[in-house]
Amino acid sequence: MPMITKQTLQHIIDHKTKPVGSLGLLETIALQAALVQQTAKPVISKPTLLVFAADHGIAAGGLVNPYPQAVTAQMLHNFVHGGAAINVFCRQHHINLMVIDAGVNTVFDDALPIVHAKIAMGTADYSIGVAMTEQQANTAIEKGAALVQQVYNNGCNTIAFGEMGIGNTSAAALIMHHYTGLPVQQCTGKGTGSNTLQLLQKIKILETVVTLHQLTNRQLSPCQLLSRIGGFEIAMIAGAFVKAYQLGMLVVVDGFIVTAALLVAQQLLLQNAATPAAANLLDNCIFAHVSGEEGHSKMLQFLQATPLLQLGMRLGEGTGAALAIPLLQSAVLFLNEMASFESAGVQNK
Amino acid sequence: MPMITKQTLQHIIDHKTKPVGSLGLLETIALQAALVQQTAKPVISKPTLLVFAADHGIAAGGLVNPYPQAVTAQMLHNFVHGGAAINVFCRQHHINLMVIDAGVNTVFDDALPIVHAKIAMGTADYSIGVAMTEQQANTAIEKGAALVQQVYNNGCNTIAFGEMGIGNTSAAALIMHHYTGLPVQQCTGKGTGSNTLQLLQKIKILETVVTLHQLTNRQLSPCQLLSRIGGFEIAMIAGAFVKAYQLGMLVVVDGFIVTAALLVAQQLLLQNAATPAAANLLDNCIFAHVSGEEGHSKMLQFLQATPLLQLGMRLGEGTGAALAIPLLQSAVLFLNEMASFESAGVQNK
Repeated sequence: MPMITKQTLQHIIDHKTKPVGSLGLLETIALQAALVQQTAKPVISKPTLLVFAADHGIAAGGLVNPYPQAVTAQMLHNFVHGGAAINVFCRQHHINLMVIDAGVNTVFDDALPIVHAKIAMGTADYSIGVAMTEQQANTAIEKGAALVQQVYNNGCNTIAFGEMGIGNTSAAALIMHHYTGLPVQQCTGKGTGSNTLQLLQKIKILETVVTLHQLTNRQLSPCQLLSRIGGFEIAMIAGAFVKAYQLGMLVVVDGFIVTAALLVAQQLLLQNAATPAAANLLDNCIFAHVSGEEGHSKMLQFLQATPLLQLGMRLGEGTGAALAIPLLQSAVLFLNEMASFESAGVQNK
Repeated sequence: MPMITKQTLQHIIDHKTKPVGSLGLLETIALQAALVQQTAKPVISKPTLLVFAADHGIAAGGLVNPYPQAVTAQMLHNFVHGGAAINVFCRQHHINLMVIDAGVNTVFDDALPIVHAKIAMGTADYSIGVAMTEQQANTAIEKGAALVQQVYNNGCNTIAFGEMGIGNTSAAALIMHHYTGLPVQQCTGKGTGSNTLQLLQKIKILETVVTLHQLTNRQLSPCQLLSRIGGFEIAMIAGAFVKAYQLGMLVVVDGFIVTAALLVAQQLLLQNAATPAAANLLDNCIFAHVSGEEGHSKMLQFLQATPLLQLGMRLGEGTGAALAIPLLQSAVLFLNEMASFESAGVQNK
């Protein structure tokens, strides 16, 4: 089957009954979705949001996070009972929501309607040693990938990832530092609501971690990096990104932590690709929003990514992605359903 | 019944299971909706979008607009057949869509499923005389108000306005100039796609119009202003804003032309209010997006308004509002449906 070209699609978009370019970013997204799906009639099928939850050993001490570590497990129960923000938004937009225990520091009842994929009872405290073994990192990546394969097999072609893990903005900041080379200070934000003193303390600790684990060494493999600073949810999301790309799915990218996992996923793909061109993960990524977490806008800049929403949100859970999925649907719908100047008998300029 | 205070509502919002402020603008909108409806459980009932269409005499010559005037009527038929962008987005989000002939320069079949509210066959060319009589302006304002009353009577509590009218960015630019005092050049943009030469010509013509109609005179009444430069759709939208405010409805404000109509509506309310405080139209307004039309961001700045979306759209029809309504719904839903720290058994920091 011949490839559908960008030119063909742009011609179709430009002849819809509207001034050229007047749907702004929606036109960019429509083009992208059509190119990924290789059709002028793209569809969003069974959009699904996977929320990966895990604990971070470093959070147990409360030095990088204002909320106690126990909140990760408590919020997982909140997800199950439908009371969290991500539940509300997924219900609103008919997004299939799955909650995954990637490594929460609590033993959950087997009967709990979550995906039981626990690697361990949280990572170890990476301020004194490695967060996990490389094998654990690899297992987490594989579990994330397998979950996406399963969701894909059930008919989903558009996916988003969310996360819950007290302390995980710290791991994300370290990943950002490693891949972008930006100073730790520029990668570190207030997370779920540190005050300025707590933020300074967080930066100081993370700078120590950078030295301890030699994170400025760009030669670390993704598994080595994950082994040093975690977390399990980030590793699973990285694996999930890779599989979603390999399956030709559209991926709606949430905020700070998920974008950090995307940086890891890019390296995982490059590491296995015959040529760099075979690993254009970003082709499939739609950036949902720019988070209020300080480092995210710089991470998006690094990726040359334009987010759909700028609402000052910084909640995680995939909430930014959930709110952006209707905009992706609008893009796809205008391409499918709008009349052309010709079909509607409207004069073009 | 005692008033529900901002403090009470903020306390409820701050105790939902999320870090304080982490839903960003959605929290602001939730608070606003709750205050307007005076309840901690606001609802969006039968959201409705009224698209007002009219022609502008000045557009017949093609000097301020790249598309021919006939496109207004052609697009109205496109609305009726469901092929325009606004149809797509209203279908997607279950928004009730009504199309109003406010003064299109075409005689429509009575059987056409539109609201027949034609004031005249388009305005007169305001580069050589007035656009309409003051009585016509007044009639248009009243018709807009009556329509909103009717929609409200049918159970709608959240409304948005859109417009279609070749050449209407010119009238909107003149209204903006009149009320903000900004130079015509800063109020005038490329509309549906003028090139730079056409834009310069448009600015030159509009500057002549400012002189001809003495638009720098801030003493003009809203009806005098509308009589001088129109248009019928803008007058109806201004009247619609006033009635929506008086009925305590939430109003989702679209782009450049609709925001210009809002400026007129503010003056209509002030003119009739016993005290300025009785006319806080903005309390009820949620700004959907910042349009790609150059003057809109400055208009929003003038109003100290923060838009929800920044997608670079400049299509009109109410498309920005239609895409923002789900975000308003998300705000209302999180306030209604999210668990509190207490109810979910989640520790607060």
